[in-house]
Amino acid sequence: MAIAVIGGTGQQGRGLARRFAAAGERVIVGSRDPDRARAAVAAWGETPQPIEVADNAAAAALGDAIVLAVPFASLDALLDELGPRLKPGSIVIDVTVPVTFVSGKMAMIDVAEGSAAEHVRARLPSAIRMAAAFKTIPASLLDRLDRSLDCDEFVCSDSDEARVRAAAMVELVAGVRAVPIGPLSRARFVEHLTALAIAVNRTHRIHDARFRVVGLP
Amino acid sequence: MAIAVIGGTGQQGRGLARRFAAAGERVIVGSRDPDRARAAVAAWGETPQPIEVADNAAAAALGDAIVLAVPFASLDALLDELGPRLKPGSIVIDVTVPVTFVSGKMAMIDVAEGSAAEHVRARLPSAIRMAAAFKTIPASLLDRLDRSLDCDEFVCSDSDEARVRAAAMVELVAGVRAVPIGPLSRARFVEHLTALAIAVNRTHRIHDARFRVVGLP
Repeated sequence: MAIAVIGGTGQQGRGLARRFAAAGERVIVGSRDPDRARAAVAAWGETPQPIEVADNAAAAALGDAIVLAVPFASLDALLDELGPRLKPGSIVIDVTVPVTFVSGKMAMIDVAEGSAAEHVRARLPSAIRMAAAFKTIPASLLDRLDRSLDCDEFVCSDSDEARVRAAAMVELVAGVRAVPIGPLSRARFVEHLTALAIAVNRTHRIHDARFRVVGLP
Repeated sequence: MAIAVIGGTGQQGRGLARRFAAAGERVIVGSRDPDRARAAVAAWGETPQPIEVADNAAAAALGDAIVLAVPFASLDALLDELGPRLKPGSIVIDVTVPVTFVSGKMAMIDVAEGSAAEHVRARLPSAIRMAAAFKTIPASLLDRLDRSLDCDEFVCSDSDEARVRAAAMVELVAGVRAVPIGPLSRARFVEHLTALAIAVNRTHRIHDARFRVVGLP
């Protein structure tokens, strides 16, 4: 299975790409500027399989799973570009959170579809399945490969297969348990959880608040 | 300090009243039907101090802290009734979550103020301070006094004093750590977390999903 990480040189994309590669997966980092991305990836150090680099469209066309690791505001243009290039049978993983910072104050962006995940769903070809995942893992910690995350991560999708595949990808990250929560519409609860993590971080002057569910067998 | 639990015979109110009483606090259960409430309370068993019962308005007038343990839909009428009766210096604790179940399907109620907590704030006399807390502790578990909760509970308020007092009340419950998260506007993230807990419960056929923050010192 090839995993394309679109926006793979941002902090979250980099962390995901490196974690997947460390777990032995084939990873293609997609970038608007592949030359610069190649230099960045070369500086990340060795992985069991070398991380490949391509422009976003080529990466998306190669991926069996395509992770959209771009800011929420960049999604619309990206999906217009990538939608027609996706392989039938591939799954798209939305990891975005509709959060904005205005004069340092964090706020959630009002998304007409109810969540960033449903916003993505509405802009993908209907034959492409998608899942929401990786929304609450702190990017700073994801990028520290020596650290186990010790947290849970929620996965939702309207496709059973996409949910199962996304959950398996979540569990490639050391110390993370995937917690499926059903249909994609529940992504709105997870996106608010990221905002809660930011609130905890700011209140307690930490950087890596994350969550564990208590009560699961 | 006297704690009034309005709606104290519902499952959540009962659990809170019993937990506070077990911790040695003076508790007054407020009810629309004090005679029925007295019979209910008598059946709860012994506590270090006997739990008192009064009608809602009398209980609110006695409380140094007033916990609103009623359904979201009952808040408006209740606040009209109680607002003028509250003692100066008392604090109101909103524990409600704007969740509804339509044909078995859970959905969040769209609250104009952004959260149930801000909805309450807008309907209280401005001199009365308030905090949001106890929104994510599972009511079923709260009511089992033999069980430690082993979870975190988020507390927010625009008043430092109310936040500190609400946090102290949260930690009266065995096994619960209070996590302050700043101003009342952040209650919306916590209310979505309750919806996430319900989603986890339904997906995994459990009843008591709750949360721990990882990464706090």
